[in-house]
Amino acid sequence: MMELIILGCHSATPKSNLNPTAQVLEINGELFLIDCGEGTQVQLRRNRIKFSRIKHIFISHLHGDHCFGLIGLISTFGLLNRQPDLHIHGPRGIENFIKHQLALTKTFLSYQLAFHELDSDAPEVILETEKVSVETIPLEHRIYTNGFLFREKPGDRQLMIDVVKELSIDKAYYKRIVKGKDVQLQSGDIIKNEDLTLPPKKTLSYAFCSDTAFKPSLVDQIQGVDVLYHESTFLEHHEDLAFKTKHSTAKQAGIIAQKAQVGELILGHFSARYRNSEDFKAEAEIVFDPVKLAASGQKFIYH
Amino acid sequence: MMELIILGCHSATPKSNLNPTAQVLEINGELFLIDCGEGTQVQLRRNRIKFSRIKHIFISHLHGDHCFGLIGLISTFGLLNRQPDLHIHGPRGIENFIKHQLALTKTFLSYQLAFHELDSDAPEVILETEKVSVETIPLEHRIYTNGFLFREKPGDRQLMIDVVKELSIDKAYYKRIVKGKDVQLQSGDIIKNEDLTLPPKKTLSYAFCSDTAFKPSLVDQIQGVDVLYHESTFLEHHEDLAFKTKHSTAKQAGIIAQKAQVGELILGHFSARYRNSEDFKAEAEIVFDPVKLAASGQKFIYH
Repeated sequence: MMELIILGCHSATPKSNLNPTAQVLEINGELFLIDCGEGTQVQLRRNRIKFSRIKHIFISHLHGDHCFGLIGLISTFGLLNRQPDLHIHGPRGIENFIKHQLALTKTFLSYQLAFHELDSDAPEVILETEKVSVETIPLEHRIYTNGFLFREKPGDRQLMIDVVKELSIDKAYYKRIVKGKDVQLQSGDIIKNEDLTLPPKKTLSYAFCSDTAFKPSLVDQIQGVDVLYHESTFLEHHEDLAFKTKHSTAKQAGIIAQKAQVGELILGHFSARYRNSEDFKAEAEIVFDPVKLAASGQKFIYH
Repeated sequence: MMELIILGCHSATPKSNLNPTAQVLEINGELFLIDCGEGTQVQLRRNRIKFSRIKHIFISHLHGDHCFGLIGLISTFGLLNRQPDLHIHGPRGIENFIKHQLALTKTFLSYQLAFHELDSDAPEVILETEKVSVETIPLEHRIYTNGFLFREKPGDRQLMIDVVKELSIDKAYYKRIVKGKDVQLQSGDIIKNEDLTLPPKKTLSYAFCSDTAFKPSLVDQIQGVDVLYHESTFLEHHEDLAFKTKHSTAKQAGIIAQKAQVGELILGHFSARYRNSEDFKAEAEIVFDPVKLAASGQKFIYH
C-alpha cells in the first residue's frame, strides 16, 4: 500500500489558502516527508500525521518555498521532547542552514539531527531500509536540485495456504517457504516452491520531480514508475517563462509521463498567476492519461 | 485612531488552528508589524493587509515562534518586486540570521533591507517618524528580549472654526494658528491662540510586552499607556513553570496592568496546554479591569 498526502503544492507567492510544497509519502508501512515549505508543521497537524512517525525528511532544493518550514518543524520536535533521531537528506549547505538558525535562536534539541548532504549530479541510492529504497533524481533548476524516487522492496512470496494445508506441511516451515525454499515431505517427496507459493505482491514506486526545467533525460530513470509527481509551474503559452526560470509546463510534464510510461501523473507547483488548475490537467492530457491535480490536503491511495 | 490586529498569539507548540506571535499595529496612519512567527505572511493575506504598507518590522527576540516567519515574508516581498526599503528592528544577530538564509537560498531582493540591531538593556527611542515614536521596553526572558512602546505624537491644536470665521480671519493663517500662534487682526487687536483653538486631540499609546518573566520594574516606563499587551503563557497554578521558563502568569500580567494604571490589558501568548483561554481573563480580572483576550484575526480599535 502506498499513500501520498499533499500538504502543499503551490509555488512561492503566498495566497491565504495555498501552501508551498510539502508531501507525506507512506510506502510499505514507512513514512517520509518530502520538502518542507513554510507552514508544513501546521499542515501536518491538520492532516493528523503523527510527528513521531517522521524519521526521514527529503529536501529537493534550498529555495524558500521548499525548505522555510524546516526550522520550525525541527524546533517543535524539540519542544515536544522528541527522542528518536531525525534524518535530513538535502543539498550541501543544509546542515549549516539549519544549525546556524538553531544557534542564533539558542534552540537546544532533545534529539539527534543527522544530516545527509547531497552534491552528486548522478542518481544515487541515499536510503535503504528493509522495506523501501530511495534514490535521487538529479533535476535541472536554478540551483542544485534533486527529485526522489521511492521504491517498495519486493516482499516475500505469497503462500498458497490451501495447498500447504492439504500437504499437512508444519507451520514452522512457512517462513522458509515464503523466502523461496522447497519442502521435503515425510514421504521423501520434494515439493517445488513454485507449487506452494505465488510470486511476491507487485511493488509500488513513486517519483517526485520538483522543481525542474523540461528534462527528457530523466525518463530512463523513472521508466514505468507507478506514480509520477511532476511540477507544472506554467501552462504552455508561458513556455518562455518556464524556460527562463527553469520550470516546466503542464504539457512538458505530460511528455515526461508519456515517454516514461508511468502509471499515473500528478501535477503540482502551480504558479499563483493561474485561476483554474483544471487548465493544467487539460493541457497534460493532450499527451498523457491519466492526469491528476495535486491540492492541499488531498490523499492519493494505491494498492 | 489606533488599530491592533492580532495575526497570532500562541506560544510555540503548534496546533492546526493557532498561530505564533505576530501583530499589526496601525497608529496615527502608520502601520507596523510586531514579531513574525511562522506563517505570518499567510496571516497578513488573510487579514487583507497590504504588504506595501509595512515599512518597519519589530522583532522582540530570536525565539522561533517570534521570528521564523521573517525569512518567508522578506523573500515574498522580493518575489513581488517590492521597491521601498524595509526596516528590521531586532536583537543583535538578526542581520546575520536573515542574510545567511538569503545567501544559502540564493535569494536576491528587489529592495533594500535595513537592519537596526538592538543590544541595550535600557529603554531607547529606536524610531521617530512625524507621527509616531517607538521605544524599546527591555524585558526579562531566557534570551535578549525587548517589548516596544508606540506613542502617537501630539497633533496640532484644534481650530475653533466658528470663532475664526466670526473674526473673519483669513484661511492663510489657519496653519500657523493650529501650531499655537496668536493672531493680530486688521484692527490691531491681538487674539490669543487659546481663544481660537482647543488643545490637540488626546494621543494614544500601545505597549507590547512579550516574552517576559514578571518584571515590575517596567511599570514606570509604561505608566498610563492606553493599551498594554502582556504575555500570559501560564495560569497561576503553574507559577513555578513561569518562573523557570521566564514567562508570566495571567495574574502577574494583571498586576503589571494595575500598577501601571493602563487603560486596557490584552492577554496573549497562551501555552497550548490550556483548553479555555477564558481562564486567563478570569485570573487577571482579580487584580485589573478591563482585560481582553487576544485571538488570531481579532481587531481592537481605539479612538
